[in-house]
Formats: sequence, structure tokens, C-alpha cells
Amino acid sequence: MKDLRPIIWDDENNQLILIDQRKLPHKLEYFTCKTYEDVAYTIKDMVVRGAPAIGVSAAYGMALAEIHGADIEKAYKTLKNTRPTAVNLFWALNRIMDAYDKGKSILEEAKKIHEEDIETCRKIGEIGEKLIDDGDTILTHCNAGALACSAYGTALSVIRFAFYNNKKIQVIADETRPRLQGAKLTAFELSYEGIPVKVIPDNMAGYLMSKGMIDKIIVGADRILSDYHVFNKIGTYSLAVLAKHHNVPFYVAAPYSTFDFESGVEDVVVEERGEEEVTYIDGVRIIPEGVGVYNYAFDCTPPELVTAIITEKDIIYPNE
Amino acid sequence: MKDLRPIIWDDENNQLILIDQRKLPHKLEYFTCKTYEDVAYTIKDMVVRGAPAIGVSAAYGMALAEIHGADIEKAYKTLKNTRPTAVNLFWALNRIMDAYDKGKSILEEAKKIHEEDIETCRKIGEIGEKLIDDGDTILTHCNAGALACSAYGTALSVIRFAFYNNKKIQVIADETRPRLQGAKLTAFELSYEGIPVKVIPDNMAGYLMSKGMIDKIIVGADRILSDYHVFNKIGTYSLAVLAKHHNVPFYVAAPYSTFDFESGVEDVVVEERGEEEVTYIDGVRIIPEGVGVYNYAFDCTPPELVTAIITEKDIIYPNE
Repeated sequence: MKDLRPIIWDDENNQLILIDQRKLPHKLEYFTCKTYEDVAYTIKDMVVRGAPAIGVSAAYGMALAEIHGADIEKAYKTLKNTRPTAVNLFWALNRIMDAYDKGKSILEEAKKIHEEDIETCRKIGEIGEKLIDDGDTILTHCNAGALACSAYGTALSVIRFAFYNNKKIQVIADETRPRLQGAKLTAFELSYEGIPVKVIPDNMAGYLMSKGMIDKIIVGADRILSDYHVFNKIGTYSLAVLAKHHNVPFYVAAPYSTFDFESGVEDVVVEERGEEEVTYIDGVRIIPEGVGVYNYAFDCTPPELVTAIITEKDIIYPNE
Repeated sequence: MKDLRPIIWDDENNQLILIDQRKLPHKLEYFTCKTYEDVAYTIKDMVVRGAPAIGVSAAYGMALAEIHGADIEKAYKTLKNTRPTAVNLFWALNRIMDAYDKGKSILEEAKKIHEEDIETCRKIGEIGEKLIDDGDTILTHCNAGALACSAYGTALSVIRFAFYNNKKIQVIADETRPRLQGAKLTAFELSYEGIPVKVIPDNMAGYLMSKGMIDKIIVGADRILSDYHVFNKIGTYSLAVLAKHHNVPFYVAAPYSTFDFESGVEDVVVEERGEEEVTYIDGVRIIPEGVGVYNYAFDCTPPELVTAIITEKDIIYPNE
């Protein structure tokens, strides 16, 4: 089993080895961090991406600061300022500081965070794969995969464990414009492990459903509210509506840490990102000068469109 | 009024002047054809595209053959072999040959075809614009515009005439992967005429509908069956399902020549095009080597999802 791990701690040489995601899907290269400043650079420059993966990397960054006798307060601030919105980054750094304040080893705490993330994703896969039938074709959106976590992923963990259990499955990854995480990352990580995958433009999903070519849809989540509204990558909502129209089960896979028990739908501000993500693809401008775009990064799927939410503990059926 | 005309016959110098669509959206350049061979090249190399525009251009190609005393039979065959699937190409060439066989002027017949195409698109616009309200935001897909015809377009003719009649409208063009005709051509031709337009990734349409940001959808058609099934660019069907879910009117604009009164849904083969349209964007590979794609060029929208079909003669309501 070729099991993709984007974050590797090298105990012998005290260094953090990351898959350089800037080079994907064309090259699988690794980036070695010997100092916490190296780690800060990898987060800022998106060598590593995905909220859980950023959190784990930052924790190891603190461990490197400890190992080299660096100023722990300064390392904390430097790593905290790498990305503005990744909640897991602050959560992991605060947990590290708590452990440090209690006189615990930072490296041991970082390893714990890392192992817990792997374990959570593994459990999501083991629990969720029961929903997958032999012969299923499964559509997934964006990259809710190993590359966003420490291993396995969330939506892709469910797919992986179905595959590991010898279910004959076929995956369809939609491109996921504007940043193309489906085409670039999901297609890469599934084909890397030999899991059959094809890519489609985002606008083709409905037609394939009408032809009976999609049995299930599984996506990840960025935030789930207590009433089961799901915020996830733009395009998720369209897929959920199309799934409902075609009676295709629509599953969300996410750890309990994704739940936000405090906010209501109206409280959540959907991030609008820069125009250049849409106007340019890999440096090539595709839209005429002077024409504007909308670039909402996420959308909101209401619970009535969600068949089930798969967590590391259980499967939640929002409509039962 | 800046009215975009992709096909211009220059009577003084006996030459055909085409907008070079390969250069859009970044440059508005013209390509001059002095011989029928030049015209054949422009069709093959997609200087000119869109079924009606190809038909009109080919007719002028035959006129150039007549003017220069070229072998008419040979010109016919050369032009006929430029593109395999454009029905209008064969229709226009056969009409020219009929006229020629009857001893008529080819140039005069070509001008007639050209004028009729302009007139048809103008009427579609005038009839359809009555469906548009002041203040509407209208989503359109692909390029059913002047650039695909001789002038005005079909879906974009409706939008144009609403604008010409001083209705305050806003257009949203979806990108239309894989070939990006929405981002490149529709955004270009609307902004060229000062019609307000924004571009979105294809997967954002549902979310904007859920936010009440889209009042109407208008698309063109490649083929309409007698039971009103509509074959059009891939992605049309997903929009129609989303429109139904959100109670957004879904209009199709097309001339009567688009109707196929002989085929049933099962008879129509949806073209699957080459993988490279999806795997590459403007020469940049976005999908890992060894991963396949689906590339259906069209999809099929059933009549129950179509609010109305706007033609040059009338408005058809398939569900009434």
C-alpha cells in the first residue's frame, strides 16, 4: 500500500520533511525544514496547505525552535503570523504553548497532534467506507485528502478505505475552479495510490448524474454548524442540489473539530478572495482586461440536501 | 452603438474580413481572406467559429472562388472538408451550389445568407427582450453571441436588445470549461459594447442563485428536438436543474434552423472530444500524467426544465 504522507518527522536528523505541494501534480518533491523559520516559510508559501496539515507543521516548527534553543515566544509569533484564517494553526500553536508552559516536551506534543490527526482521518475512513458499495462510482470535490491532513484525508479517507477493503470503485474528481485542487491534488493523490480516478470540468457533474454514471458524492467540510449547515469549497452546494434532483446520496466527511456549535448561518461570512484566482490560470490570463469576477471561496449547503455526515466517531443523519 | 460584427464583406476590394477569434479576448484583430483557400484556412484554424458564422464565411469563400475564376467544384470540396460536424457549413454550401447551378451570382447568394442570419438574430433579440425586466441579472453560458453568428447572436441578442432598450441589466457569464468561451468570448463581446458583465467559475452558479443574485438564465442551443429536448454546450443541463430548484426562469434562444424534427433523444450522439481540451488550459497542463478525463461536449436538457424557447418567429412554452 502506497500511503501518501505529506508530513514526515525525521527523528534521526531532527528535521521536518514536507511534500512540496507547489510542485504537484507534475513532480513529487520534498522540502526539508531544519528550523522553525523554514517551517514558517513553507506555510506562507503554500509548500504545505490544508488546515489540519498546517496545524501539524506549525507544531513541529515549535519543536524545531525547542531543539535549537530558539526564542519560543518569537517562534510562536512568527508561525502564528504565517496565514490569517487557518483556525487549526492557532489551535495547534496554543496547544503547544500550553504543553510548554506545563514543562512538557514540545516535540512530544507535536508528535501527539500529528498522531491524533492521522488517527482521526483513519477512523473517518473506516466508519465511512461502510457506506460505499462494491462497484460504486464516487464523485468528489476539491481536495479533502491526505494532502490537506497528515494522512488519508476526510472524504478521500472514506474512498481509500473502501479501496483498501477491495471494493471495486471508480472516482470522479471535478476540477474545482478556480484553484483546481480536484484536477491537481485529488487526481494526483488517488492515482499515486493506484485508485482509479478521472477528472471532469465542474459543469459536467449534472450530465453524468443524469446518465446514471455517479452513485455517490463525498465531500469534505470547512465548517459545520450545529443545525448541520455545511460550509465547504465553492461548488459543493451546486453538487448537493444536483444530487438531490437525481437521488444520488450526498455525504460530508469531517472530524468533530470542524463543528462550530456557536454560529448561526447568518453569522458566517463567506470569504471573497482575489480576482486573480479566476482571471488567471497558472499565470495565463483567460478573461479580458477590465472585466470583473465573483470569487466566493465557499458556499453553504443546507441540511436537507445532506444525506449523512461521517465523523471519526459516528455517522450523523441530519434528516432523521 | 458599438455593434460587434465578426464577418465583413468588403465590396470595394472583394475580400472577406473576419475577426480573428484566436486572438480574443486580449486583441481584437482582423484576418483578411482574398481567396477561397484563405477562407478554408480560417475555418479549419478557428479564426472563425460558431455554426452560423462558419456557414456564412464558407458562402463568401465560394464567392471568392467565383470572382477569381477558380474551379467551383474544387472550392466546394475544399470548404466542405474544413470542419466535420458544423451542419450550417453543409447547408450554406449546398444552398450556394443550388444557386450556382441555376446560374445565379454566388456573391449575391452569399450576401443573402449573411443578411438573413443577421435578420434572424435581430428578431430573436427583439422578440426575446420582452422577457427581460429592468434591473435583471442574467446568467448566460458559453458564447451564444455575435461571435458565433453574423451579428447580435441568439442568447446574447436577447441581452443586447434589452440593453439597447435601456433596461438596466447585469450579465453573469460562466467560464464554460473546458474551452472557456464564456470567460473569453462572451465577456469580451459584452464588455466591448459596454454591457455590464462579470465572470464566474461554472461551479458558482448554484450559490449565486441561492443568494437571489440571478433573476434569469438564457442560453443558446445546438439542436432542439420536436419534443423540445435541448442539446447545448456541456453545463447547460446543470444550470437548468439549478434554475428549477431556485425558481429561476430558464430560457433557450435559437433560430428555427436549430430544430431537428426527425431525431428522438436516443438518436442523438453526444460528441466526446479530445482529452487535451480538459488536461491543458492555454498550453499549461493542469492534470497529472496518466489520469484520464471525460470530455462530453454537449448535454441534453429535458423540456420540463425549459421555461421558454425564443425563436425569430415566436416564443414557445414547452410546458403549456
